[in-house]
Amino acid sequence: MTKNLLLDNERVDQLFSTDVKIIQNREVFSYSLDSVLLSRFPQYPQRKGLIVDLCSGNGAVALFASSQTPVKILAVELQERLADMAKRSVILNQLEEQVDIIQDDLKHLLDHVPASQVDLIVCNPPYFKDRESSKKNLSEHYLLARHEITTNLDEICRVSQQALKSNGRLAMVHRPDRFLEIMDTLKKYKLAPKRVQFIYPKLGKEANMLLIEAIKDGSLEGFKILPPLIVHKDNGDYSDEIFEIYYGKNKSN
Amino acid sequence: MTKNLLLDNERVDQLFSTDVKIIQNREVFSYSLDSVLLSRFPQYPQRKGLIVDLCSGNGAVALFASSQTPVKILAVELQERLADMAKRSVILNQLEEQVDIIQDDLKHLLDHVPASQVDLIVCNPPYFKDRESSKKNLSEHYLLARHEITTNLDEICRVSQQALKSNGRLAMVHRPDRFLEIMDTLKKYKLAPKRVQFIYPKLGKEANMLLIEAIKDGSLEGFKILPPLIVHKDNGDYSDEIFEIYYGKNKSN
Repeated sequence: MTKNLLLDNERVDQLFSTDVKIIQNREVFSYSLDSVLLSRFPQYPQRKGLIVDLCSGNGAVALFASSQTPVKILAVELQERLADMAKRSVILNQLEEQVDIIQDDLKHLLDHVPASQVDLIVCNPPYFKDRESSKKNLSEHYLLARHEITTNLDEICRVSQQALKSNGRLAMVHRPDRFLEIMDTLKKYKLAPKRVQFIYPKLGKEANMLLIEAIKDGSLEGFKILPPLIVHKDNGDYSDEIFEIYYGKNKSN
Repeated sequence: MTKNLLLDNERVDQLFSTDVKIIQNREVFSYSLDSVLLSRFPQYPQRKGLIVDLCSGNGAVALFASSQTPVKILAVELQERLADMAKRSVILNQLEEQVDIIQDDLKHLLDHVPASQVDLIVCNPPYFKDRESSKKNLSEHYLLARHEITTNLDEICRVSQQALKSNGRLAMVHRPDRFLEIMDTLKKYKLAPKRVQFIYPKLGKEANMLLIEAIKDGSLEGFKILPPLIVHKDNGDYSDEIFEIYYGKNKSN
């Protein structure tokens, strides 16, 4: 069955710590560590509810999330090519009952879910402002996934505010150099930041990624900076924590 | 000479990585790791300028800072007993030419320095809101040093805004649970956060301290999360970084 689901140059990658298989194509789009970490960050509803994955790309976050919750997940991706990969990954994993891939602009989210009814939104958004440089060599697929061309932080927070129920949560991965703007934008849409985790490439290095969870209509009390996540050891190997995330708990067995 | 400078129950502590000696009294006030880390955090002016230490306590931050810059340091402490300890520590270290201890309320800072002329303000403020609990068993000296009774974050930022020159810096140590309020208050007074370092007691633990530097009238670009500072190894010993800060570089020699 797998072969019939693959187009030219596509391959199936598996995150070994889960059973999930994901159709990838390096020239078009591949998920990376940020999607894996985001998918492990939120507390998922376990009984009922609705989860939305915005900027879903090839569906990696939604697919990883499916192994942590039985609740329905709706993944929204603008790019037809990526949404198509995601749809085929859903079939490959036999997740048609749980995961829906919607190819649409996220600004139309309320065409697909009722207002103020979503329990959790996860989002791995474009990190870079449209005007930021070093985008010349990107394919159009990567360009739209990485740069704020078709959506931006403000729109993501506005749409999240509309779709989340009161006390629903938005979990995002982003870059520390935009942290001030992230905090201001969350605040603008009454999304109260609650937990932040900084990801450091090595112990002596500045953070290059952050995970943030905010609660709609939440109070501003109880803010936490979670334990640091260090990606590499000094010798360049993955840290034990990241190794376990990628490969499961088998390292020292 | 030292003996003549000490009152009952006082002792002289030395941070071994510097030559600075500090008069302490556990029942009245002793500096701790936060003051040491704060004193190492800012980039100090090296040729000319004016540095102010607010909430100076027994003068630890100002005294540690004196080993990193030749520039004049004015330390402001409200409590007479603590300011008196600090004044005697200045004499003990023969720093009368460089460090002035002023016993006054920090809201009167502009009685002691000209407006918009200070290059750097360092501050280890009271961390806890007045209403926060667990203050019953504190001596009055610790109570005022730890709780926002005689001053608070808003006042510290307001006074800093008045005293700093444009592009002057405020460096503070504080607690992560007040991070949102710190960011908002800095912004209110046009102090742009630029560098934040989170201090984690151990690798797997939430941050319990943060260092933050803000620039008066600075832009909101270029924000950085500095490398994590881990205080203890898993076995409870100081991490190499903290050991070096306390004892200098001699550990493995």
